Amino acid sequence: MFSTTTTYRVRYSDTDQMGVVYYGEYPRFYEIGRSEMIRDLGYTYKELENTGVFMPVSTVNAKYHKPIYYDELITIETTLKKMPMARMVFYHTIMNEMKEVVHTAEVTLVFLSSETNRPVRVPEYMIRALEKMTDLE
Amino acid sequence: MFSTTTTYRVRYSDTDQMGVVYYGEYPRFYEIGRSEMIRDLGYTYKELENTGVFMPVSTVNAKYHKPIYYDELITIETTLKKMPMARMVFYHTIMNEMKEVVHTAEVTLVFLSSETNRPVRVPEYMIRALEKMTDLE
Amino acid sequence: MFSTTTTYRVRYSDTDQMGVVYYGEYPRFYEIGRSEMIRDLGYTYKELENTGVFMPVSTVNAKYHKPIYYDELITIETTLKKMPMARMVFYHTIMNEMKEVVHTAEVTLVFLSSETNRPVRVPEYMIRALEKMTDLE
Amino acid sequence: MFSTTTTYRVRYSDTDQMGVVYYGEYPRFYEIGRSEMIRDLGYTYKELENTGVFMPVSTVNAKYHKPIYYDELITIETTLKKMPMARMVFYHTIMNEMKEVVHTAEVTLVFLSSETNRPVRVPEYMIRALEKMTDLE
Repeated sequence: MFSTTTTYRVRYSDTDQMGVVYYGEYPRFYEIGRSEMIRDLGYTYKELENTGVFMPVSTVNAKYHKPIYYDELITIETTLKKMPMARMVFYHTIMNEMKEVVHTAEVTLVFLSSETNRPVRVPEYMIRALEKMTDLE
Repeated sequence: MFSTTTTYRVRYSDTDQMGVVYYGEYPRFYEIGRSEMIRDLGYTYKELENTGVFMPVSTVNAKYHKPIYYDELITIETTLKKMPMARMVFYHTIMNEMKEVVHTAEVTLVFLSSETNRPVRVPEYMIRALEKMTDLE
Repeated sequence: MFSTTTTYRVRYSDTDQMGVVYYGEYPRFYEIGRSEMIRDLGYTYKELENTGVFMPVSTVNAKYHKPIYYDELITIETTLKKMPMARMVFYHTIMNEMKEVVHTAEVTLVFLSSETNRPVRVPEYMIRALEKMTDLE
Repeated sequence: MFSTTTTYRVRYSDTDQMGVVYYGEYPRFYEIGRSEMIRDLGYTYKELENTGVFMPVSTVNAKYHKPIYYDELITIETTLKKMPMARMVFYHTIMNEMKEVVHTAEVTLVFLSSETNRPVRVPEYMIRALEKMTDLE
């Protein structure tokens, strides 16, 4: 397992008139989680795109356990459970300021060549970074 | 089964720099689908809230089959497969202008009392509307 | 003057915990207004981009007169007051269901070549469409 | 003058297919700027709301000088130029990683009582905090 933790301050723009974070804002939180994980590996998603690889989302499976409120500093924990091949699965656990788990999500991304628009394998340098920095198999 | 169909014009605000609709915009499409279905039943979600019932989202399971592009007039088909009790499950199928299925999602909502913040059963008048207008069991 | 009117149903995603439409959602409404105006001229903004012309926003001057509420069917009236040259100024007036003016905005866009990333004049075919369909000078 | 500086990492969700930050995302940046300024004064906007005072936006005047790109760590500088009375005017200057000014905006908010929904004067404790921490007049 390889995990990265990042925090996010909930803004007014994230709330809806139920007085909680709108359910459609959570995919942005997953994006923050996975891009900070990739940054922790020594790369950025931006650099990945510059090498001609895009990572569109393929599936999202999410559970809303408890609401998140305005101005909370939430913690987004992102975990890789196995070495990516054709796809990369990120597990996100979001905690509120009391460290309660308020949301969990499993998000799968695929690797696409921007040239051919066809699936490609995970780039070699990402594999090497994961091999060096994690014990994923 | 009970289905409602509505259309949505994709806006620039929905796109990202991959040149497609950002994956985090789709929950808005589900919301459009389910609120138009409720309107078709003779009610609005707004009226529901005015009677003290909120419907927060509990789970989202979504598959991104193909990208959606700027300015496409997409079709959002929303289906109820069984009579709601404590929860209401909406099945969404999104089609592009060529009528290809580009996205499917199963979204579960629960009924909450705004007074007690506890789960409640689906309001009687919604059951009656569903019984009158559909063959759901 | 040349005006186009379009409607938009306010969604839950548009609201914030003040119980009204979040002030940052209004630029999306301007976009809806101006893209429907361009469609009324017989073109789409998408086609414009395909000819290598982008229209980034240069300035926004907006007044929030009254709040807009969830589920309201608002009317977005978009007006051109003069023939565009290097820039195009759209005037937006948003009305609620009681036809009260709730918001006004003046939004200026420029024309950029996607090739050179430099300002260009408004495309000839748009001038011709405006000359044919309006009395703008 | 009283200024606060905060940073924000641009996310994929902020971009559009022009490959830059969508113009409608900037109001979120202003919100980040002003809420961090209020936090610097020893309060939070959340606490303000809990005392029955809302601050809806009244006007926005914004200039888009240069585009902002994906993954940039932008700096949002927020300035108060005079002591607020019935309204509070925030001046925002957004800089990219090269410290170029890419955007400026002047955003006016009013103070509303949540009870009467009518304008009220700026709360006394905010005046006192501003008097203590700034030289505003």
